[in-house]
Amino acid sequence: MGVNQTLNVGMIGYKFMGKAHSHAYRDVSFYFNPSLKPVLKTIVGRNEVGVKQAAAQFGFEAAHTDWRELIKSDEIDLIDIVTPNNTHAEMVIEAAQAGKHILCEKPLAMNVQEGKEMLKAVQEAGVVHMISHNYRFAPAVQLAKKLIEEGKLGRIYHIRAQYLQDWIMDPDFPLVWRLRKDVTGSGALGDIGSHIIDLARFLVGEIEQVTGMTEIFIKERPMGEMTEGLHAAQSSVQKGKVDVDDAVAFLARFNNGALGVFEATRFAAGNRNKNKFEINGSKGSIRWDLENMNLLEVYFTDDDKSLQGFRTINVTESVHPYVNQYWPAGHIIGYEHTFINLVYELIQGIAEGKQVSPSFEDGVRNQAVLEAIARSAREGAWINVSELL
Amino acid sequence: MGVNQTLNVGMIGYKFMGKAHSHAYRDVSFYFNPSLKPVLKTIVGRNEVGVKQAAAQFGFEAAHTDWRELIKSDEIDLIDIVTPNNTHAEMVIEAAQAGKHILCEKPLAMNVQEGKEMLKAVQEAGVVHMISHNYRFAPAVQLAKKLIEEGKLGRIYHIRAQYLQDWIMDPDFPLVWRLRKDVTGSGALGDIGSHIIDLARFLVGEIEQVTGMTEIFIKERPMGEMTEGLHAAQSSVQKGKVDVDDAVAFLARFNNGALGVFEATRFAAGNRNKNKFEINGSKGSIRWDLENMNLLEVYFTDDDKSLQGFRTINVTESVHPYVNQYWPAGHIIGYEHTFINLVYELIQGIAEGKQVSPSFEDGVRNQAVLEAIARSAREGAWINVSELL
Amino acid sequence: MGVNQTLNVGMIGYKFMGKAHSHAYRDVSFYFNPSLKPVLKTIVGRNEVGVKQAAAQFGFEAAHTDWRELIKSDEIDLIDIVTPNNTHAEMVIEAAQAGKHILCEKPLAMNVQEGKEMLKAVQEAGVVHMISHNYRFAPAVQLAKKLIEEGKLGRIYHIRAQYLQDWIMDPDFPLVWRLRKDVTGSGALGDIGSHIIDLARFLVGEIEQVTGMTEIFIKERPMGEMTEGLHAAQSSVQKGKVDVDDAVAFLARFNNGALGVFEATRFAAGNRNKNKFEINGSKGSIRWDLENMNLLEVYFTDDDKSLQGFRTINVTESVHPYVNQYWPAGHIIGYEHTFINLVYELIQGIAEGKQVSPSFEDGVRNQAVLEAIARSAREGAWINVSELL
Amino acid sequence: MGVNQTLNVGMIGYKFMGKAHSHAYRDVSFYFNPSLKPVLKTIVGRNEVGVKQAAAQFGFEAAHTDWRELIKSDEIDLIDIVTPNNTHAEMVIEAAQAGKHILCEKPLAMNVQEGKEMLKAVQEAGVVHMISHNYRFAPAVQLAKKLIEEGKLGRIYHIRAQYLQDWIMDPDFPLVWRLRKDVTGSGALGDIGSHIIDLARFLVGEIEQVTGMTEIFIKERPMGEMTEGLHAAQSSVQKGKVDVDDAVAFLARFNNGALGVFEATRFAAGNRNKNKFEINGSKGSIRWDLENMNLLEVYFTDDDKSLQGFRTINVTESVHPYVNQYWPAGHIIGYEHTFINLVYELIQGIAEGKQVSPSFEDGVRNQAVLEAIARSAREGAWINVSELL
Repeated sequence: MGVNQTLNVGMIGYKFMGKAHSHAYRDVSFYFNPSLKPVLKTIVGRNEVGVKQAAAQFGFEAAHTDWRELIKSDEIDLIDIVTPNNTHAEMVIEAAQAGKHILCEKPLAMNVQEGKEMLKAVQEAGVVHMISHNYRFAPAVQLAKKLIEEGKLGRIYHIRAQYLQDWIMDPDFPLVWRLRKDVTGSGALGDIGSHIIDLARFLVGEIEQVTGMTEIFIKERPMGEMTEGLHAAQSSVQKGKVDVDDAVAFLARFNNGALGVFEATRFAAGNRNKNKFEINGSKGSIRWDLENMNLLEVYFTDDDKSLQGFRTINVTESVHPYVNQYWPAGHIIGYEHTFINLVYELIQGIAEGKQVSPSFEDGVRNQAVLEAIARSAREGAWINVSELL
Repeated sequence: MGVNQTLNVGMIGYKFMGKAHSHAYRDVSFYFNPSLKPVLKTIVGRNEVGVKQAAAQFGFEAAHTDWRELIKSDEIDLIDIVTPNNTHAEMVIEAAQAGKHILCEKPLAMNVQEGKEMLKAVQEAGVVHMISHNYRFAPAVQLAKKLIEEGKLGRIYHIRAQYLQDWIMDPDFPLVWRLRKDVTGSGALGDIGSHIIDLARFLVGEIEQVTGMTEIFIKERPMGEMTEGLHAAQSSVQKGKVDVDDAVAFLARFNNGALGVFEATRFAAGNRNKNKFEINGSKGSIRWDLENMNLLEVYFTDDDKSLQGFRTINVTESVHPYVNQYWPAGHIIGYEHTFINLVYELIQGIAEGKQVSPSFEDGVRNQAVLEAIARSAREGAWINVSELL
Repeated sequence: MGVNQTLNVGMIGYKFMGKAHSHAYRDVSFYFNPSLKPVLKTIVGRNEVGVKQAAAQFGFEAAHTDWRELIKSDEIDLIDIVTPNNTHAEMVIEAAQAGKHILCEKPLAMNVQEGKEMLKAVQEAGVVHMISHNYRFAPAVQLAKKLIEEGKLGRIYHIRAQYLQDWIMDPDFPLVWRLRKDVTGSGALGDIGSHIIDLARFLVGEIEQVTGMTEIFIKERPMGEMTEGLHAAQSSVQKGKVDVDDAVAFLARFNNGALGVFEATRFAAGNRNKNKFEINGSKGSIRWDLENMNLLEVYFTDDDKSLQGFRTINVTESVHPYVNQYWPAGHIIGYEHTFINLVYELIQGIAEGKQVSPSFEDGVRNQAVLEAIARSAREGAWINVSELL
Repeated sequence: MGVNQTLNVGMIGYKFMGKAHSHAYRDVSFYFNPSLKPVLKTIVGRNEVGVKQAAAQFGFEAAHTDWRELIKSDEIDLIDIVTPNNTHAEMVIEAAQAGKHILCEKPLAMNVQEGKEMLKAVQEAGVVHMISHNYRFAPAVQLAKKLIEEGKLGRIYHIRAQYLQDWIMDPDFPLVWRLRKDVTGSGALGDIGSHIIDLARFLVGEIEQVTGMTEIFIKERPMGEMTEGLHAAQSSVQKGKVDVDDAVAFLARFNNGALGVFEATRFAAGNRNKNKFEINGSKGSIRWDLENMNLLEVYFTDDDKSLQGFRTINVTESVHPYVNQYWPAGHIIGYEHTFINLVYELIQGIAEGKQVSPSFEDGVRNQAVLEAIARSAREGAWINVSELL
């Protein structure tokens, strides 16, 4: 632990997620009163100019290009990994061996086997580990969790969840790293499918078996990388083959008997970031949609017969999870606050020496579902998730 | 009363409202089991070709061009008046003197004085009289009324109601009768403003005083009449002066202390028929919108603190007003059903020999509010409605 | 054909669908100007008291208990079959052989084989045949169809459709005929799943293969039948085994490469009749929801970059399909109007001697998808729909 | 100006608005690249314990109890005033005389006279002055402004705006400073009415005349102050008279001929923070609602006739105002970001030596409308706003 009740943070990667995580460390002490005050020590990236710029913008004290050096550094308490998926395993294992606490972006790994090795490493090292499934930490999702845990929805019958985007529909959008299997492992499946799998496991329980299908609508794209986050594209004439899924859909059966219907796609025109779910139980239902993330729709079967209907709850009351730290009722928070809440939980876990959730174990379980879906899509059959664990 | 438990209907006028009323008489026996079965006897209109066509389409046994003859006819039990406003008084008074029950379109009259004479006539004749404020009879509005009467909203603080349309925004839209003061008395005020006044009186109570403003945005328009209901326009080069309001807004104080904010306009682009209100009380609130007329949004202050939110009730349950006569839950009804419900109440009133609601007394009270608003708009001052009664 | 340009209708069955169809025949001549005027001649049901009551309410001239007699009757032009599924085949085949035009409720048959025989019978007889998939005839669905056919959505990538209900969630709800496999063939699958399959085929095209799952959440229920349509239940102490699906979900691949994700359930609390879909194409997307059936949400990728968003179209304009027959813009229609539009198309087909859509061929194709899903659910594998045709 | 391109901020007040402003200074350099980097130097409050706590949480270097000392301090560049309304004038005038740039909370003053003196002071001092009407800076509101300025809505006919809250509906809610006329000048009128007046002036133009009404529903309340921002209340047995409006409504005529209908209330149950407006013009309409502040609904009359409808634009695209500084499309921002955007504009104005908007001139103009409404409510007559300027 850093001196003076601080938590020294070293970050590897500095793009979209680097920005989101950095901001959370900066703001968490403003809104919460965490037991440790995070200090943005060092940020690492391969591009020296880029990482220096990021350090200045995000507020890191230093910028480096060698992540191994960062991991070795004695002054760092927490390693935050926001790099592409194919780098997670190596970094996590070394960081764990160096005794660092770890926050890792999702999906955890390229496959279950890698994930298990990462989990083993952090468990053996006894460090706190967390996977960055930030949507768990939206107040409305936390309220949903509370209602389900209290039995307010009764026995769960159904979950239907979709993560719909449309940012690569243009055939001229280039083959960025998120569209390359060697870097990312899968496409929509791992990138956004992993989020709805995690939410489903969080809210409904473990998934027993799945059957799925994947599709690549645009088979080849111009080579090249986006120059600036997800915003702009720098394309070339040369074309490359797309080898990750543009879209995936799957059916699931949960251990508790619930049925799940899931879909993740980057080809749903007009849906910029539509991460939504509906859960139906014997006593009620809930609906949530990230694009209006402060709202939770809730229905109860025991409401007066003539007054039954979904309530649109503005989850911005002081009685709602995390909200009291922010603003008065009706003053909404946004996407970035999910990370602030997540980072708060992580810091508290580190401070109190107890493991937090979602952990790498969740990461491995999510990965097993991802892998089962991918296998199912190849084989055209139902796959038991437990076979992969 | 007609023989064999029938109710013989004579109708004067055959355009938009003629169609809506005719349909209601045809369908009421299908859905309800009214004590009298309405029979469409005779329809009257000035244009012989037009009224014959209407008779054939609507299912009337006969078509005439002389409304006085209809009123004199012994076989008619109920006179239904769906003509322009400047003809209502004469027809109503003669029909009452002939002992006919009367359904009259809104607004009742050209002014309060006329309305009072009409009311006197029907009261002296002892006939059943009803004004066609059909929106009272939407199941969701009936549910709203029930909730308020049961005290579920507590003391009423606010009503804000708007009736927004946009069908005359095109400056080339011609000077149809609804835009001529000599025919209609006023513009948006009487045509659609009267509906929200009636709903407000129905739900909140009597209005004590008002202050308002009116505006004519397009000062002159091509002469000419629409050829086909509200759908098409036949314009000419010659222009005429518009002398009725395109838009009106007014503030109101109710006898019970509630505040009202009202607006009716034909210049709200994109709002085809947006008749909506919100009512706030000490214990809850309700919202309704004609364009999604099967829904009622309801909020209760005594819902669990963390689960408060407007419930979107699909007012299509068998426990809801009128719904049991139609379809199973979730199968919506439409605009025309408000008339079927209205006609059912009218028939039951006639069969049971008791006055129904909204009566011509409501018509007169609505008219007084209309006249108070018009006067207020001219004088720039608050007007007590009671001064006009 | 009946004399004097009428179409004499004989109906078999008189419950929920009997009411909906009867109403449509009554109202179609009011709103449209069909080439033949339907006359409600005879209605047939097993329960003499019930069918007589229905005849009186619906307006049939006569009521009988023997459907074979009806089919033999020379005065009948059209046989309308609204009985449970296990009776359709026999009735259709005999009616076809008697040279009657036929409207049959969905799903067409108990299985594909039956359906093929029915199709053969009507084709050999040369009669007009139609299956009552009424939702095709909602104006908003027709507008969706038009947009897709005109290429406004481009290449179709996705359809996700759900039909969610909650009317049998109470474990004390009895084993009505819709929950008995010998009568109905399947549960949610055939009853409501068939509707979203038909809509998907109508809008997107033929389905190549499917994989699905079904579930029975409540394994046994009290014996007994509902006394009054879908509204009330008369239960008994004795319990019986539920042998049809409470819920079904399936993935689909279409011939044109689109992916489909479907779900039909009677256990989605708070969803009374939520028949909804979203379709995503390369140039745009559409969304529809039966509970607000007058609305169509439409998104176009070529809208100005800063002004892109789903448009909520109130499909009540005179330029929209069927609407011109009803009311001015913003005055919504309801569930029953889908049947009026359907019956209008049927009558025109009969009058003009040409086959209408959806025909029994659609019925057979829908049945093949249903059967493929059921088989897939049993076998845990993808099934090619063509194998069943 | 501070050394090293910093902007040294001194803040007076530390409650709800103190938190919102402080956060904005902290985050502005993270998201934007402002020409000056704000440094939180000193925060001032009357309660020594409270202000020290605030300084620690918000990140100020020092905390003091004497605002005059702060204003005299040479190291301060910008004075940010977030105290109750009755203190603004004195502080602003002294700060201006000391040559400080000033950001002041709304409403600017207790009356127009005070406001004019404040404006004179800042103009004479040549300092940059801004009033904190933060809602102007929601990206969706900026987009609305852009559309109107570009003429996309044509001639403006209507604005209807409401600011509905419900936080003082409980009669036991105590007489906090916001309910005391000597401290705040008015109730809902100045607190939230000022926001919708400012938005209306920003979007539609100057208001010519108004007529309004105000009401106090709960005439007396327990004495006492809330202990913690707006969240909790510490009440006492002793009661005091409420002398500010619980609710206000007013009609307005704009210089450009538009009509306005406005309402602000703290008694609209279920409306936590419903700041919403709709504007109708000859070519289109827009709708906005703070509770879903990332959305803008837009309607255009020149859209294809069969495809007209309000578009729900998720104003989170990189092409939208301010959004490029935050997150990718579909990742929403919240309440606090309105202040970040506002502070960015303020800093740029200071850096570039040019006056920003909304300035104290806007504050004075808003104040004149507020005063005209209050006078109108007392006199029951229309008041010309210009009479008060």
